[in-house]
Amino acid sequence: MTRGKFIALEGGEGTGKSTQARLLAEWLAGQGLDATVTREPGGTPGAEAIRSLLLAPPGEGWGSRAEALLFAAARSDHVEKLILPAMEDGKWVVCDRFVDSSRAYQGGAGELGDDAILRLHDIGSKGVRPDLTLLIEVPAERVAERLALRDGGNADAIGGRDADYHRRVGETFREIAARDPDAFALIDGTGTIDEVQSRIRSVVAPLVTGQS
Amino acid sequence: MTRGKFIALEGGEGTGKSTQARLLAEWLAGQGLDATVTREPGGTPGAEAIRSLLLAPPGEGWGSRAEALLFAAARSDHVEKLILPAMEDGKWVVCDRFVDSSRAYQGGAGELGDDAILRLHDIGSKGVRPDLTLLIEVPAERVAERLALRDGGNADAIGGRDADYHRRVGETFREIAARDPDAFALIDGTGTIDEVQSRIRSVVAPLVTGQS
Repeated sequence: MTRGKFIALEGGEGTGKSTQARLLAEWLAGQGLDATVTREPGGTPGAEAIRSLLLAPPGEGWGSRAEALLFAAARSDHVEKLILPAMEDGKWVVCDRFVDSSRAYQGGAGELGDDAILRLHDIGSKGVRPDLTLLIEVPAERVAERLALRDGGNADAIGGRDADYHRRVGETFREIAARDPDAFALIDGTGTIDEVQSRIRSVVAPLVTGQS
Repeated sequence: MTRGKFIALEGGEGTGKSTQARLLAEWLAGQGLDATVTREPGGTPGAEAIRSLLLAPPGEGWGSRAEALLFAAARSDHVEKLILPAMEDGKWVVCDRFVDSSRAYQGGAGELGDDAILRLHDIGSKGVRPDLTLLIEVPAERVAERLALRDGGNADAIGGRDADYHRRVGETFREIAARDPDAFALIDGTGTIDEVQSRIRSVVAPLVTGQS
């Protein structure tokens, strides 16, 4: 059986990743592929429990270091129990966020640094990388409008951090993608949902050829 | 203000660490020192929440890698929010388990290896070490008797692992202590609670001199 491919969607808050991940998985299924959509942190019972701790921390909130370790722990469970077994089973995995979110949030904006995040990923998940990472980019002012619509201004412990934090997240995503152009596709996240999905399909299509 | 000292108690299941930690803290208080007793995983609201996930895992149980990351995350929170602030405040901290438990359990018995555990400790807690680690040793057959008395044979996700796992834990503790004799005191954990406590006090006493 052909091993399935692993596609991650990355980007800041409110860039439409979850919706686009779902639509991409539907399109892949329409191409005759068995596709699973999942998310981070989460995707398995253990990782979803860690997600709850991350988004609504007990006590006074996590420091950058504990937060990075929790993300790596959730990812380890997700990779071991869901992502790798699905791929070995011939399924395509479409994941809403993966290790590059940790690099951008805890590594860049949280100031733990990229080396520490990559080291955690090596220890936790043997350094597994997606076959392709789609970085969805939306200008900051457009994101602010979308977030206001989505949750009336409420946000979790990470999404609710200040604008400067989220600016550093965006910068780090762009730096990471620029350093490794073969692994990333930059997706213009402006326009309608269908327009963005169409851009995504055009970069994923070459991977599909010969697999369906 | 003189910085407080940090003493960890280590050993396998049923070696009496919790009782001895409490008695040691009481004795330190009797010497005029401000002493705090705490435990791992746990000690802070965040770390206690992680403890619950570790001892009663959601889903099918954690792999070695996720487990090591969760312990490191709990330790990071504990060190940052409780242990270091207490020491800086002049308090002595007596901790029931610390990083050497991760080295023995996840590193040795869980086969993740010592380097990975030490790397996680560097990232999570800047490699903080106790001033002294007391390794309490009790022969395996005596431990089995004590555990049967304590919980009627029930055990958590880690304590309940097989005898071979716990044998490797004990071996790894001894190897770690042998490699770093200045950092460890080996304590004979057989005999009455008072006898063991008396051995502990005799090795801690030299640290107390000049601090009270």
